[in-house]
Amino acid sequence: MINIGLLGLGTVGSGVYKIMKKNHENIKAKVGTKVEIKKILVRDKKKKRNLDINNKLITEDPAEIINNQEIDLIVELIGGENPAHKYIIEALKNKKSVVTANKLVIAKYGNEILNLAEKNGVQISYEGSVAGGIPIVRPLKESLAANRIKEITGILNGTTNYILTKMTEEKKEFADVLETAQNKGYAESDPSSDIDGLDAAYKICILSSLAFETLIDVKSIYVEGIRNISREDIEIADELGYVIKLIAIGKQGKDGLDIRVHPSFVPKNHPLALVNNVYNAVYIHGDAVGDVMSHGKGAGQMPTGSAVVADIIQAARNINYKNGNNYFVSARQDYKIKNIVEVKNKFYLRIKVNDKPGVMANLAKVLGDNKVSLASVLQKNRLKPVVPLVLVTHPVKEKYLNKSLEELKSLEDVIEISSKIRVEGDNE
Amino acid sequence: MINIGLLGLGTVGSGVYKIMKKNHENIKAKVGTKVEIKKILVRDKKKKRNLDINNKLITEDPAEIINNQEIDLIVELIGGENPAHKYIIEALKNKKSVVTANKLVIAKYGNEILNLAEKNGVQISYEGSVAGGIPIVRPLKESLAANRIKEITGILNGTTNYILTKMTEEKKEFADVLETAQNKGYAESDPSSDIDGLDAAYKICILSSLAFETLIDVKSIYVEGIRNISREDIEIADELGYVIKLIAIGKQGKDGLDIRVHPSFVPKNHPLALVNNVYNAVYIHGDAVGDVMSHGKGAGQMPTGSAVVADIIQAARNINYKNGNNYFVSARQDYKIKNIVEVKNKFYLRIKVNDKPGVMANLAKVLGDNKVSLASVLQKNRLKPVVPLVLVTHPVKEKYLNKSLEELKSLEDVIEISSKIRVEGDNE
Repeated sequence: MINIGLLGLGTVGSGVYKIMKKNHENIKAKVGTKVEIKKILVRDKKKKRNLDINNKLITEDPAEIINNQEIDLIVELIGGENPAHKYIIEALKNKKSVVTANKLVIAKYGNEILNLAEKNGVQISYEGSVAGGIPIVRPLKESLAANRIKEITGILNGTTNYILTKMTEEKKEFADVLETAQNKGYAESDPSSDIDGLDAAYKICILSSLAFETLIDVKSIYVEGIRNISREDIEIADELGYVIKLIAIGKQGKDGLDIRVHPSFVPKNHPLALVNNVYNAVYIHGDAVGDVMSHGKGAGQMPTGSAVVADIIQAARNINYKNGNNYFVSARQDYKIKNIVEVKNKFYLRIKVNDKPGVMANLAKVLGDNKVSLASVLQKNRLKPVVPLVLVTHPVKEKYLNKSLEELKSLEDVIEISSKIRVEGDNE
Repeated sequence: MINIGLLGLGTVGSGVYKIMKKNHENIKAKVGTKVEIKKILVRDKKKKRNLDINNKLITEDPAEIINNQEIDLIVELIGGENPAHKYIIEALKNKKSVVTANKLVIAKYGNEILNLAEKNGVQISYEGSVAGGIPIVRPLKESLAANRIKEITGILNGTTNYILTKMTEEKKEFADVLETAQNKGYAESDPSSDIDGLDAAYKICILSSLAFETLIDVKSIYVEGIRNISREDIEIADELGYVIKLIAIGKQGKDGLDIRVHPSFVPKNHPLALVNNVYNAVYIHGDAVGDVMSHGKGAGQMPTGSAVVADIIQAARNINYKNGNNYFVSARQDYKIKNIVEVKNKFYLRIKVNDKPGVMANLAKVLGDNKVSLASVLQKNRLKPVVPLVLVTHPVKEKYLNKSLEELKSLEDVIEISSKIRVEGDNE
């Protein structure tokens, strides 16, 4: 028998409880012995719950779980930095294996936690921390182990993907869709971690660390959210054959790793363009396998619960059969993380100008002087005194583009640089 | 040190050799010890090979590998039924773990082989047997272990997908595209196993056995290939908003398992419709995770090599750390396999009729009398004496449809039932 201590009984915790209960026969067969939830840590014992749960399992005292000799495996589903981080560290020190879905803690403290688990001869698993139910952590570690991974590109945040999908389909502005999403429970009341890109940054940090076998400081990742994406940009993207997605990228280049999260123009025929609503997708390029893409639900009680319970089954099996089978992806490689200004991209620019003769010539000169060459130019609503000018550049290092934009701002007839969005998936 | 014996040095065998050589440092780190190819069985030692290989490794005598005390792990990449099956059995009896990419042997003898491996306390892995480089066997066993799998739908054969894609894109007939595919090496000189659906049947047999934890006799699977798909059907499909794909299905229903391989109409907005050329895709529905889909290259030296080497790494790790970590999916469940005539589907029918008043009324009566109701009717090229009539039915059990088709054939003005193709992915 394997005894489990559950930390947290929120959305995912309840999902894990339900799956363990519903499929317990199946799980027993897979693990080779019975797996039981022995204790559950909650903040408030008296809170009403929609779960058929024995009250004796519930406790408000973490020590009853973390210091409990009878408990073999701790499942941390509290989320956030503290006290989750502290509990995980204590559990590992007490030689308990840990399963967690905590992207923040794994992204920020992954190396400390992995080393501590290895030192104590226990397991740490975190499939649920990235892309919900889509199998990605284990496949990266095991199924694609024969490959050198060259690139991971993903839609890793369901909230922003839902908002961008609705903005596109219903031709609405960001703020309106955000409000609907909050009402429907697809966005949190404080949605900043999602919409400012931090959530996706934690996830690409975890995946890149695994793929490139290195230690990536989440602070070194360039992060830009979707607050500034306007309905106008989405409509122009559509006209030009693109959709706008919040893309997380981890690429290995000769001169370092290129890791970033930002809204991107994605060609409509690119597989990622078709991933809509709360769906997530991860696209991987390996030197042997070529391109592999997986998609599915990236969040939610049951999909994330599915990933967490898969980790529980595997960890419980290893405990039951005394397998020292935790493959630790150590930070064996040392890479430079490229600054975003050194990365080459195509750019979409929307610039508000006075519609006068010679304006375009002046703009083109500034861009050309800064090594920025244009792939296409689109002038909207001519015959008005102020017009939006839409430019798509050829690939150019962002520092050159930024310098040209600074110079453009000082031109008399340039009123505003309204948008600057990177283009992914059709770089020449 | 883990010593490997390689049986076969064809396309995939050479790929495995190359990957093991190129990524040996990486593999050593993952396994925890050096992994070395000690012996390679070939049919003809003198054959010229485009590989930098020490001649001492090569042998024509299987006993030098299978009975070799120094070899821990046998990698079978000969393919076909015999002698591959015999070698695998002998290796397991000699207490060697086995990695194979042999779909035929695993589909036909999976239970015998799994039981033998379990009895001898060794491992058997076969990720490379299905969908090439796409991680699917291990994810089904491990990453989705918390789920009850309800449905697997896949495009599992690259050759037929390539042929159907080219027929669609280039508006060509089957025979012409097959010839091009053979010239390009995308189809074998005897392509029957691919184009008649048997290859896909082996694969869905393996995946369904895993997903439903049961023993599926490959002979109980309904199999229909793509030889009879005409350019005309593909064009009409396009008009109606579909593409034609060779689909492999494993579904769990109340009254048994529905397992089959056949060409299908797939709505253009269904994710599988977008999987083209030699790409494979597997779409899984689990009770917790919901829908997950993966796609990638389903065959070829490096993608399949990627899957085989991943199995090698895992098996070698387990040998190195003495992990008894082979989870055997035993045939714990007993299901009835539904006969295809009991399965409900929508059908596309193309029927050649004399264009006379009353013909449609007579047809509709026969169909209605047999419980077949129509979702749409399309009459092509009117004003000619003989016209193709295109019908799409509502979902109906195939036995009722078959009976109505028999009756239709006897109608005076029905010249020919030209096509009957099932419709997947938009069943009501």
